Amino acid sequence: VVLGIGDDVAVLRYGDRDYLLATCDSQVEDIHFRRDRILPAQLGRRIAAINLSDIAAMGGVPRWALVSLAVPEDLEVSYLEELYVGLGKELQDWGAAVVGGNLSRHERQVVIDLSLLGTVPREHLVCRDGAGEGDLIVVTGSLGDSRAGLALLSEPRARVSRESAGQVIERHLTPRARVREGQLLGQSGRVHAMVDVSDGCWGDLMHICRRSGVGAELWLDTLPVSAACREVATAVGADPGRWALGGGEDYELLFTVAANRCSDVVGLLAAECGTSCTVIGRVTGLDTGVQILTGKGGRRLELPASMGWDHFLTGASAGT
Amino acid sequence: VVLGIGDDVAVLRYGDRDYLLATCDSQVEDIHFRRDRILPAQLGRRIAAINLSDIAAMGGVPRWALVSLAVPEDLEVSYLEELYVGLGKELQDWGAAVVGGNLSRHERQVVIDLSLLGTVPREHLVCRDGAGEGDLIVVTGSLGDSRAGLALLSEPRARVSRESAGQVIERHLTPRARVREGQLLGQSGRVHAMVDVSDGCWGDLMHICRRSGVGAELWLDTLPVSAACREVATAVGADPGRWALGGGEDYELLFTVAANRCSDVVGLLAAECGTSCTVIGRVTGLDTGVQILTGKGGRRLELPASMGWDHFLTGASAGT
Repeated sequence: VVLGIGDDVAVLRYGDRDYLLATCDSQVEDIHFRRDRILPAQLGRRIAAINLSDIAAMGGVPRWALVSLAVPEDLEVSYLEELYVGLGKELQDWGAAVVGGNLSRHERQVVIDLSLLGTVPREHLVCRDGAGEGDLIVVTGSLGDSRAGLALLSEPRARVSRESAGQVIERHLTPRARVREGQLLGQSGRVHAMVDVSDGCWGDLMHICRRSGVGAELWLDTLPVSAACREVATAVGADPGRWALGGGEDYELLFTVAANRCSDVVGLLAAECGTSCTVIGRVTGLDTGVQILTGKGGRRLELPASMGWDHFLTGASAGT
Repeated sequence: VVLGIGDDVAVLRYGDRDYLLATCDSQVEDIHFRRDRILPAQLGRRIAAINLSDIAAMGGVPRWALVSLAVPEDLEVSYLEELYVGLGKELQDWGAAVVGGNLSRHERQVVIDLSLLGTVPREHLVCRDGAGEGDLIVVTGSLGDSRAGLALLSEPRARVSRESAGQVIERHLTPRARVREGQLLGQSGRVHAMVDVSDGCWGDLMHICRRSGVGAELWLDTLPVSAACREVATAVGADPGRWALGGGEDYELLFTVAANRCSDVVGLLAAECGTSCTVIGRVTGLDTGVQILTGKGGRRLELPASMGWDHFLTGASAGT
């Protein structure tokens, strides 16, 4: 065991060239999703993506999945079939496949647990513990879309354009993992620490800081927020900056890189994947935690610690 | 993927010398266990043993476990701690350890899903598909104890000796996987097909027959039933033979071996583990299914097909 409990992914020494990666994540009905708000095929894609994202954040190649399902006795067989189809497709896009699992009865709820195994060449592994003072903090894509999608599902009468609604709801129900980007970042040898944005960028950056023994500042006005997210936030009277900071479930990659290597890495993802990246802060000295500044060189904001996404406390997710 | 969906364990090609084994199994409250009838430490040991048994049936070495827990918000932290201690101890006995997992909220029930990875030297792997006509069918230990334990938990006022009650309840709540026996059987190179007895020896033998494309006969009067199991069956007015045949959750190993190698193999387990084995039938020609005879050379019994243990239909288990 190279890396055990504490990270989202276990890193295991097995074979001579690679590490074996193992992760698992669940979706519990009425906690993580509502059955009337997500199609079974979407749910399958979602649980796959959540696990794929964990492997992506280590720079890994997803390979084998075990699916454990507990379902009510009266659930239609077609529901399970569609769920499996969605799950299989999402995995297949990255060369992975379901290799086993089990099915059991549950009184009322659908509970899905997926375990995903992957591999990574030893020299390409990226963990959370390598961030160094002066590193820039970079995030792929945009933040807050998933939270905006959740808001729209809860307030379907909010007045937003169909296009924006479609975009944020899709980001929420069927996120895509940044698998290719994660692999490129691992291969680049330039990334010091990486995590996927599942708890919200503030909370996930905290994981990097704790593991690396460093502090960080986040520049609020730099957070990449899509026009669709802003439109939804305006319609429901919410703050898109807060969604970007603490909304969670964006499944973007958040990583740190030495300042003088940053443009190389950002250029690599743009060229190879067409994926935009944004510098959203920097790593500071010891033990300051993650401070939120209004912007680079700006004033410090005081925000409640509870703004980070804690599944166990808040539990809100796909459609709930 | 050497062996995927369909067996309890996926067999994966990875590295040069070994196969990687991956399995997962769940315990759902009120389906597989009742929280008032099993201590958290016992539940932890139980979920570990169920998965260990799957690895044992391939001749494998258990190594790394991922645990996925969904629990009600008001569950005491001590419950989780004790569950982890039990889980960890049971794994540790076989050199395995929890390397990761996740915790989420559930409205009311405790749901545990364990994924267990193991390895097996390629030449020691035993699957379900190698049974050949004329093989003897052998089972370790005794059958029906777990079902007797379940009966006693449901009828606590049944009059049986404290010793027998303790024995069968322990077999039910905290079964032990035959890990060492499975490894020895794999190393022996003599075992043609193997499965662990989770669904009942009839149902599990059916799995071997289907996979191997053979039929089998089971000799009812040879099934190893403990004195404690007989005592409980008498007390509650049940047939211990039926428990042995279809009760399930015994986690013994059921395997087939050429008739002229049988005594070597049985002697090996006796000498190395002190584990007794019993010949309970033989493999026959094609497509007969599993026939139950009163005994070797005896008359054929007609039993309802539903006597096999089907978790999805009957779902009865630890304390339910």
